[in-house]
Amino acid sequence: MSDPVLVEVTRGAIVESRHRGAIAVVDAAGRRRAAIGDVSQAVFPRSAVKALQALPLVESGAADRYGFADAELALACASHSGEPRHVATAARMLAAAGRGEADLACGVSWPASRDAANALVQAGERPSALHDNCSGKHSGFICLACHMGVDPEGYVRPDHPVQREVTAALAALTDTELGDENRATDGCSIPTYAVPLDKLALAFARFVTGEGLSPAHAKAAQRLRAACTAEPAMVAGSGRFCTRALALFGSRLFVKGGAEGVYCGGFPDLGLGFALKCDDGASRASETLTAAVIAAFIPLGAEERADFADLLVPPVMSRVGVRIGEVRPVAGLDEALR
Amino acid sequence: MSDPVLVEVTRGAIVESRHRGAIAVVDAAGRRRAAIGDVSQAVFPRSAVKALQALPLVESGAADRYGFADAELALACASHSGEPRHVATAARMLAAAGRGEADLACGVSWPASRDAANALVQAGERPSALHDNCSGKHSGFICLACHMGVDPEGYVRPDHPVQREVTAALAALTDTELGDENRATDGCSIPTYAVPLDKLALAFARFVTGEGLSPAHAKAAQRLRAACTAEPAMVAGSGRFCTRALALFGSRLFVKGGAEGVYCGGFPDLGLGFALKCDDGASRASETLTAAVIAAFIPLGAEERADFADLLVPPVMSRVGVRIGEVRPVAGLDEALR
Repeated sequence: MSDPVLVEVTRGAIVESRHRGAIAVVDAAGRRRAAIGDVSQAVFPRSAVKALQALPLVESGAADRYGFADAELALACASHSGEPRHVATAARMLAAAGRGEADLACGVSWPASRDAANALVQAGERPSALHDNCSGKHSGFICLACHMGVDPEGYVRPDHPVQREVTAALAALTDTELGDENRATDGCSIPTYAVPLDKLALAFARFVTGEGLSPAHAKAAQRLRAACTAEPAMVAGSGRFCTRALALFGSRLFVKGGAEGVYCGGFPDLGLGFALKCDDGASRASETLTAAVIAAFIPLGAEERADFADLLVPPVMSRVGVRIGEVRPVAGLDEALR
Repeated sequence: MSDPVLVEVTRGAIVESRHRGAIAVVDAAGRRRAAIGDVSQAVFPRSAVKALQALPLVESGAADRYGFADAELALACASHSGEPRHVATAARMLAAAGRGEADLACGVSWPASRDAANALVQAGERPSALHDNCSGKHSGFICLACHMGVDPEGYVRPDHPVQREVTAALAALTDTELGDENRATDGCSIPTYAVPLDKLALAFARFVTGEGLSPAHAKAAQRLRAACTAEPAMVAGSGRFCTRALALFGSRLFVKGGAEGVYCGGFPDLGLGFALKCDDGASRASETLTAAVIAAFIPLGAEERADFADLLVPPVMSRVGVRIGEVRPVAGLDEALR
């Protein structure tokens, strides 16, 4: 496998580091609109498919039963920064089903937000599983189990009824068989399945259009997407890529990142989905590539272009705040995408 | 440029991400002992050459004048974690020359150590320039200026007498012309120069043997290396790669990492220096490669091999502490290095 260099990191006039990767853009019928690098390689989408993993929560009626509004649904699709509103929303989701933090199996981690972490320290507290970036998704899983009338215990196991529902939704949207052979374990202990990059793009073309989906899947997808559009701050956190891009482009875009350099999303108005993987797993490269994909498919006004500039070509700054380099898509990428 | 894949990151049985890179191992006469990838590519060594940048501090007599022991000299070569001992040592260095934190031009950053950062928050304090990972190097620069009788103001500029001394030492050890064409700015605002990878390896073969150096350079190199060996905790911080490797291998190894995937070092007993660059700038890959280089050139006893195992093949862990993958050198790398 030798994917092309797609992102360069410069220092002064010299390229200091290079990131390779692959990008698939397809429509809901699976027709390729753009294909850069090896788009049939199987990649673990990680958190980039959280919105697909949340489909059963909505479809089953659990979200309605527990009174979930946009904030809760967006948090179920989120890799959040552990800010107070994220923690409070996850706690509210669990409480709605009569459950709590002790039921979360994602593990404990410090909030990604330094402000949130420092606020915990100042209060003399330690992080809990609610602060983990996956606590919204896991709260959704626990609520789904309760709604299904099954014990949430062991809900991260591939053979638990919750994961069987989640895996079935992923398999349906990606047209991919998901089983022992392509399964590994995510950082939050749930199964993650390696799926061809172009099938992930297909899944998101379907997710943002409803085309090729059962009516129930299509309705749930529409509701989850609307929730993320309405509550972008819930999907990631202050200043983060997904939150900023969702806030900037509203209903013209769906986007979600995952660990190890994966981003997925789609353009509802264009009927297109995309998926990309940076070979080395770097977030700075996958973010810049995602920004390049967005800029290639959404016509940006002058104001949007200004607001988007530091996502498309993030500066490399010295620690006294001087711009000393940049992270940029390679020349010609824009043309290759269109 | 297409360097080979040298590090794989697995999840379950599947390779999730891949890192490419180049490795040069040479003797003090510049003879290549191992060359993987493009070893004549110019790379910014960043903090990997801090020990070379500290040569004028020792050679000039400044270190003796200000009474620097191993701890101060090791900190001058360090990218430290901002732990209390690092901060106190930098402050002591500055005070010895009648200077203080306000003279530091590196910028302010939170300690890399979460414990150190949390301790600051608990004490109701904010980080200062002393907590910045480069504060030891910068304190050395300021002391050098004072000893030279020049105003430290502007000591990060390429044309300041301090940087002229530092650049001359770098140029001498690397046999490379350093000027406007290969200069950019490091994160701490000092100049960084792009140098061919095999010339960096040559510089460290010279640094660890003294061969090919002026007597003054050789004596200063010996003293700095002894200081890092004696005070490995000063060179990085608790649990970090350089600190652990220096502590484990003592005088058999010199090693120092830099940002954007660079490591340099040498094996004094073997008369060899090495330099490596991970193309994408990832530290996890450059650390694993450095461990592979060390394991190829230092015969490890059973106990050393056990202590070194998690540096050579770092586990990928879930957030509940289960091993779900690993970061590993590619098959055949060990043979290619020997």
